[in-house]
Amino acid sequence: MELLEQKIRAEGKIREGDVLKVDGFLNHRMDVDFLCKLGQEFYRLYADCGVNKILTIEASGIGIACLTAQYFHCPVLFAKKSRTLNLSNKLWTSRVHSYTHNTDHDVVVSKSYLTENDRVLIIDDFLANGSALSALIELCQKAGAEVVGAGIVIEKAYQSGGKAIRARGIRVESLARVASMNAADGSITFC
Amino acid sequence: MELLEQKIRAEGKIREGDVLKVDGFLNHRMDVDFLCKLGQEFYRLYADCGVNKILTIEASGIGIACLTAQYFHCPVLFAKKSRTLNLSNKLWTSRVHSYTHNTDHDVVVSKSYLTENDRVLIIDDFLANGSALSALIELCQKAGAEVVGAGIVIEKAYQSGGKAIRARGIRVESLARVASMNAADGSITFC
Repeated sequence: MELLEQKIRAEGKIREGDVLKVDGFLNHRMDVDFLCKLGQEFYRLYADCGVNKILTIEASGIGIACLTAQYFHCPVLFAKKSRTLNLSNKLWTSRVHSYTHNTDHDVVVSKSYLTENDRVLIIDDFLANGSALSALIELCQKAGAEVVGAGIVIEKAYQSGGKAIRARGIRVESLARVASMNAADGSITFC
Repeated sequence: MELLEQKIRAEGKIREGDVLKVDGFLNHRMDVDFLCKLGQEFYRLYADCGVNKILTIEASGIGIACLTAQYFHCPVLFAKKSRTLNLSNKLWTSRVHSYTHNTDHDVVVSKSYLTENDRVLIIDDFLANGSALSALIELCQKAGAEVVGAGIVIEKAYQSGGKAIRARGIRVESLARVASMNAADGSITFC
């Protein structure tokens, strides 16, 4: 999506350690008028897929998920991060590994709100190694829900997550796909 | 707001320990079409106040804040919870006490995104003892930003937070104000 690539070039900051900082419009300060345009694009891509639920993960996925859901006229369910083991039989649970912090945590959703009647679009702000997205897909599979696909704002296409998940036959649409970036000179290229 | 009171009566569940469970439409599964109506009501209340930023706190405030902000055509800034002491001179920080968990944590926003040029509407899902709202107000005060007011979805009016904050001269608009609720018989009354 050309508009998003322009925005990333104009406002994104590349930092050492493979960090693309977009907290000025995406995941701290949120440029809501702009995010609505991304939501409309997700709707264009998935409009005819019978989506009846959007699933995301707290915290930075929630805003873009809600702004997207209004075009689908469907609810959003956000998975909650949990540091403690959840043994409740009322929750679907899966495990996320954070490569940044080298820690594991669970993500949970209530079984009441994710069922075999759901056709789910998963929305998230970033896709890199795919651990969060894989965990959300697993929640859907445990619930017997159909994963229609994923809508990602920014994919680090040089990392393995997107490729691995597409190889499983899951549709992944990323609005910007970063091919490479360089903290030394601030350059970024898109696929 | 009559529509919201009806929704709470129909879908809310009252649990022991002063819990009003509205995770079916507000803070886990989010009924986005319904939340848009709440956003429109916040806009009606604050439309002529020159709001140029909406401030909320992760995670459950983000959805309603984003859906509200699109009517104001302004960005959302969400304060991040931090368990660790933040000594960065790039952050505004304030302390929140959780009465539920009897713990303290910091909330932080980047100084870049909250400044003396901001006229801030604070949005949150719940107001009870007021600790989160007070912390958000403090962030604005540290930044020299003007707090136009607060927009709360559900206020537990029998707790002290709303009264104390209004007594400081800060406008607080709550779309539903719970006067009392009873877990034993499931009854709820509104102000």
